[in-house]
Amino acid sequence: MSFEKRPSGRAVDQLREIRITRQYTKHAEGSVLIECGDTKVICTASIEDKVPPFLKGKGQGWLTAEYGMLPRSTHTRMDREAARGKQTGRTQEIQRLIGRSLRAAFDLNAFGERTLHLDCDVIQADGGTRTASITGAMVAAHDAFAALAAQGAIGAIPLKHFVAAVSVGVYQGEPVLDLDYVEDSGCDTDMNVVMTDGGHFIEVQGTAEGEAFDRARMNRLLDLAELGIARLIKLQKAALGMAA
Amino acid sequence: MSFEKRPSGRAVDQLREIRITRQYTKHAEGSVLIECGDTKVICTASIEDKVPPFLKGKGQGWLTAEYGMLPRSTHTRMDREAARGKQTGRTQEIQRLIGRSLRAAFDLNAFGERTLHLDCDVIQADGGTRTASITGAMVAAHDAFAALAAQGAIGAIPLKHFVAAVSVGVYQGEPVLDLDYVEDSGCDTDMNVVMTDGGHFIEVQGTAEGEAFDRARMNRLLDLAELGIARLIKLQKAALGMAA
Amino acid sequence: MSFEKRPSGRAVDQLREIRITRQYTKHAEGSVLIECGDTKVICTASIEDKVPPFLKGKGQGWLTAEYGMLPRSTHTRMDREAARGKQTGRTQEIQRLIGRSLRAAFDLNAFGERTLHLDCDVIQADGGTRTASITGAMVAAHDAFAALAAQGAIGAIPLKHFVAAVSVGVYQGEPVLDLDYVEDSGCDTDMNVVMTDGGHFIEVQGTAEGEAFDRARMNRLLDLAELGIARLIKLQKAALGMAA
Amino acid sequence: MSFEKRPSGRAVDQLREIRITRQYTKHAEGSVLIECGDTKVICTASIEDKVPPFLKGKGQGWLTAEYGMLPRSTHTRMDREAARGKQTGRTQEIQRLIGRSLRAAFDLNAFGERTLHLDCDVIQADGGTRTASITGAMVAAHDAFAALAAQGAIGAIPLKHFVAAVSVGVYQGEPVLDLDYVEDSGCDTDMNVVMTDGGHFIEVQGTAEGEAFDRARMNRLLDLAELGIARLIKLQKAALGMAA
Amino acid sequence: MSFEKRPSGRAVDQLREIRITRQYTKHAEGSVLIECGDTKVICTASIEDKVPPFLKGKGQGWLTAEYGMLPRSTHTRMDREAARGKQTGRTQEIQRLIGRSLRAAFDLNAFGERTLHLDCDVIQADGGTRTASITGAMVAAHDAFAALAAQGAIGAIPLKHFVAAVSVGVYQGEPVLDLDYVEDSGCDTDMNVVMTDGGHFIEVQGTAEGEAFDRARMNRLLDLAELGIARLIKLQKAALGMAA
Amino acid sequence: MSFEKRPSGRAVDQLREIRITRQYTKHAEGSVLIECGDTKVICTASIEDKVPPFLKGKGQGWLTAEYGMLPRSTHTRMDREAARGKQTGRTQEIQRLIGRSLRAAFDLNAFGERTLHLDCDVIQADGGTRTASITGAMVAAHDAFAALAAQGAIGAIPLKHFVAAVSVGVYQGEPVLDLDYVEDSGCDTDMNVVMTDGGHFIEVQGTAEGEAFDRARMNRLLDLAELGIARLIKLQKAALGMAA
Repeated sequence: MSFEKRPSGRAVDQLREIRITRQYTKHAEGSVLIECGDTKVICTASIEDKVPPFLKGKGQGWLTAEYGMLPRSTHTRMDREAARGKQTGRTQEIQRLIGRSLRAAFDLNAFGERTLHLDCDVIQADGGTRTASITGAMVAAHDAFAALAAQGAIGAIPLKHFVAAVSVGVYQGEPVLDLDYVEDSGCDTDMNVVMTDGGHFIEVQGTAEGEAFDRARMNRLLDLAELGIARLIKLQKAALGMAA
Repeated sequence: MSFEKRPSGRAVDQLREIRITRQYTKHAEGSVLIECGDTKVICTASIEDKVPPFLKGKGQGWLTAEYGMLPRSTHTRMDREAARGKQTGRTQEIQRLIGRSLRAAFDLNAFGERTLHLDCDVIQADGGTRTASITGAMVAAHDAFAALAAQGAIGAIPLKHFVAAVSVGVYQGEPVLDLDYVEDSGCDTDMNVVMTDGGHFIEVQGTAEGEAFDRARMNRLLDLAELGIARLIKLQKAALGMAA
Repeated sequence: MSFEKRPSGRAVDQLREIRITRQYTKHAEGSVLIECGDTKVICTASIEDKVPPFLKGKGQGWLTAEYGMLPRSTHTRMDREAARGKQTGRTQEIQRLIGRSLRAAFDLNAFGERTLHLDCDVIQADGGTRTASITGAMVAAHDAFAALAAQGAIGAIPLKHFVAAVSVGVYQGEPVLDLDYVEDSGCDTDMNVVMTDGGHFIEVQGTAEGEAFDRARMNRLLDLAELGIARLIKLQKAALGMAA
Repeated sequence: MSFEKRPSGRAVDQLREIRITRQYTKHAEGSVLIECGDTKVICTASIEDKVPPFLKGKGQGWLTAEYGMLPRSTHTRMDREAARGKQTGRTQEIQRLIGRSLRAAFDLNAFGERTLHLDCDVIQADGGTRTASITGAMVAAHDAFAALAAQGAIGAIPLKHFVAAVSVGVYQGEPVLDLDYVEDSGCDTDMNVVMTDGGHFIEVQGTAEGEAFDRARMNRLLDLAELGIARLIKLQKAALGMAA
Repeated sequence: MSFEKRPSGRAVDQLREIRITRQYTKHAEGSVLIECGDTKVICTASIEDKVPPFLKGKGQGWLTAEYGMLPRSTHTRMDREAARGKQTGRTQEIQRLIGRSLRAAFDLNAFGERTLHLDCDVIQADGGTRTASITGAMVAAHDAFAALAAQGAIGAIPLKHFVAAVSVGVYQGEPVLDLDYVEDSGCDTDMNVVMTDGGHFIEVQGTAEGEAFDRARMNRLLDLAELGIARLIKLQKAALGMAA
Repeated sequence: MSFEKRPSGRAVDQLREIRITRQYTKHAEGSVLIECGDTKVICTASIEDKVPPFLKGKGQGWLTAEYGMLPRSTHTRMDREAARGKQTGRTQEIQRLIGRSLRAAFDLNAFGERTLHLDCDVIQADGGTRTASITGAMVAAHDAFAALAAQGAIGAIPLKHFVAAVSVGVYQGEPVLDLDYVEDSGCDTDMNVVMTDGGHFIEVQGTAEGEAFDRARMNRLLDLAELGIARLIKLQKAALGMAA
């Protein structure tokens, strides 16, 4: 199949419409609804005043993430993981990725023996749920640390970098930015990229689902990801009322 | 403690503000966000073209429900059931109640060998999540059957009755309708009632958490429940654009 | 179907023959075999000198219940829950009910940092196993606390009320007391009621399995339950050698 | 410690008092309460009209066993396996032993594509629960096959041999028959033996818990077992109303 | 820390010594011991004559992988996953990676309704177990398909490409090829790369464990990976007695 | 079938070729590959500086064993226990046997509050994996304790006896020593015997899989086992460089 245009009509380097709503639910220290087109994820950040046993007494904090999809967030209803009694490999892989990405964003030595729990729950899925989770969780975590700082529990938000994530892939032979579900299902190569506001990489996870890809293609995909992430970080900062 | 007024300032027989939003997410045949004050539950209804093994070949349909809470829907973050590897007894009790209540609303012999899955996921909790789930799931199920009828798969919506649910309880010695979290935590007696639009009972589940209660008190609680449910069913019908 | 008479020939307000055998097994602090007609449940009460973590150091006791059925206690052999690796929702619901009911009977602040474990194991089922469990567990718990008092570990049995439970339901259009399996399978409405010796309610759990029921019917069912529970509490006290 | 006499006062080659009660519960095709002194086990035999997948269509039957202990059948309450979510290694080892032993008693090719489920549930434990289970299950299985034959479903009871089991061990340096709990806890060597009415071995499982034992001791233990089992098989046959 | 030399004394672009032993165990259709320095993995390929349910009747094959580590393959003994009752997220992530990589190597439409199971079991770990697993599994899978072809069950080995994998990373500021455990523990960036013999990418998984990395560094790492994989594929082909 | 000769051509009292390779893997305190003909088991012994909770503070050590089979160690691939989420009853039975046997070999009071973990992992199975595990684990455990003694952590190896294990059975009516898979599958009686270098029994586990066996046969089997174990213990001591 040769490429004519994206199903959504977007330009190849165009993100979907992004909306970041803070204080989406009332109990969490940080609570964000992130919408990337039709993908909608609730990201909450909860602070707990203790660390896992392996860190006890080391004067250091911890940050961990969990991910879930509501059973009917997808086209066809999926089994509820709580009812099946275990999380799928895909779920575990995603929550490990979110955790690693956000641990790169904050200084774990600068918020005491506390745990920041990030919960990313997909209420509607249309592709890119793991990257939306990371981008949204960044804002939720920032809010939670701001709350902690406002209480005087820590001196400042222990920020190292902003991080955001986006998917890129090859759709009908053409590298495109921010795949939606239709593109994702039909794509040959799929890459999830996590970067900092300094333009450096935190994670690159590329998979050839159909054809193996060459170095030139990889470079083009990384260019698109760089572009998209720069825009996403602007949107995160704007949502937080910060100068870009 | 003697009763002065409800923490929310509501009258003893006053429901919280109820909002029912249909088509809340895009994939499910029926998708409702129900808000009862600060309690918010997404109720989706999904139709599957098969029945569980025990009903195969009997020409009859099935309706089943699952319930979950996002980990930070509550004041303090709860463990994620999918990560713990099992649903709590409370969760199972609630989803069994939702399933029984909705099976009373529809004629299982009138929609072929199909299963209607109801998923009730609490995104914010402030008391009364199980009753909100039932009230919202009624509307979602109605929408899903309407979609099935619109496709011509069934002749008509297999409706027996509308059902709705509400909690009543004794707060500071005073019977009140539709308890919020603050009232619920401090109440002596808590009763969940499910009724039809004909004013008949489907379920009554009353528990004395503090003082055992006498027959007169029970009668007063049932009066309040009857009142509240009549109002909720009006709201359900209005949301569906039906004459009350 | 219109009612002619109960399959067992009992009057509508007649309990099955009840037998309460104390010291049924030798190791437990309290051990009761309760027989309600052909329903037979072993109820043991075990005292452990510690409380669950959430109560540690609060100077308060705890009481918890577990319920099980032998695989062939029923008409058709059921899977063994230990072999399946989990308890069903029904089992969890029942053991939560037994626990709540018995926590209403005793003063948790009056027996130190101890846990009373109630185990209700059905060896033969013929309807009403959960209510028989509650009625039998009351006697077993009383015996266990008496043993503790006899050792001088506590000053007195921390009794608040006697509690007992019974089922009522509508069989062939007629409200009847204490349903056996045949009645239970064919009944429209089933209600389990737990009450104190003061005639107050601890739990009311009514379900319309067929037709929804109206207020008048509910009142009649509660009348029958009240009658039955008064008799059961007399039998409990007699078994314990107490004046009624 | 040198041996003076057994705690129970029994002779070294004396069994505890054995009682075998048939038709102990009413639903199972075979239901036996076996009491060996204070050890009490309910053994039920249930016939199911199908075989496990690996035997489907082979024209052969299957026999399988499960074993459990009520949580307070023992001195100290044990965790309920159904609540813990798995059976212990000990439980699995015992139920595998019971299954193998009883499969040796019956001809699996002579009762069609049926499964005989044996459930051995200990309601009171005082040592020797696994051997009591085998001895009791033999009678329950016999009754279940007799019922099947009475219905005309099979021509005859597919009996190969009677089997029974007993424990022997070295208590305070002295080989003794049929250990009770006190002897079992303090013994050096423990051996469970399963034999046929022809005096042949089905299983021998000996373990040196303290001192390793020599061949002479082993021979003495086997002599005692042989004696005990001959008596047990007489009791089984008597319970079934058969000539010894 | 500035880089002086690798702990092993290797050049920055030097692989560890690689040994590939075919027919390592006798039962499997393909069985390979791959040794990459001190990392040793047994890779077996087993052919089963059926496919998972989701592929039944589609005339297509399936290939799946599982991964495990012996508890004491590592410096400190790890819990046995079979005893803990579940595989860790890391294990699942790795076995998903192995499966995807090898599915890219073979044509799933060209070996009938069969499943190729790849089992990669680490008997000694010294870094790079997942990449060694992929490289070894390639040879084992090739052997298994060759056996199938030799039996005449398929016309030819359904090979699309050879695939091999290697890790690259930044050790003390210096990009290096094929990290051993000492380097891996101390490295800032870790990237696992899977490529074909055509020099195309199948998977790229890079993680900044310490400092985020820039594009230039990424390019250097990919250069090293390309180099290493070309050598590994030569070794695979040599082991199979094929011309490079 | 009457016996002509063993499939392997061995004499009835002849062991398979035994090879014991110490220091087979590099991380464990003791690591042994034991080969009994085509049966190959890696036995590692790991020392941990703590004991399980039930022994804390008693000044005593613990020794425990785990057993596993690689999925394709057998003729047909077995499910991976870690993926199924539980160990089979057979696995648990075997690891309990290994643990008991080795606890008889060492003085648990003479190595401080430490745990010796024995992991026996079968990489190729051809009958007799449990007995090979015990025989190999003896050597691995000895090495681990020697390492501990060499560090000065304990004064001497806390050896009580050498233990080794072998299977004996009746193949085509003939008692034979050390059954391989072909013999094991076709045998009537199978007995696993564990003995000390003093010629005493630790465990005897005999099962009649076909015909029940008489006392004479049992004696002949024990004679063979005694013979085989004496030889195995010589080989263990030789492997350790000790005088027999």
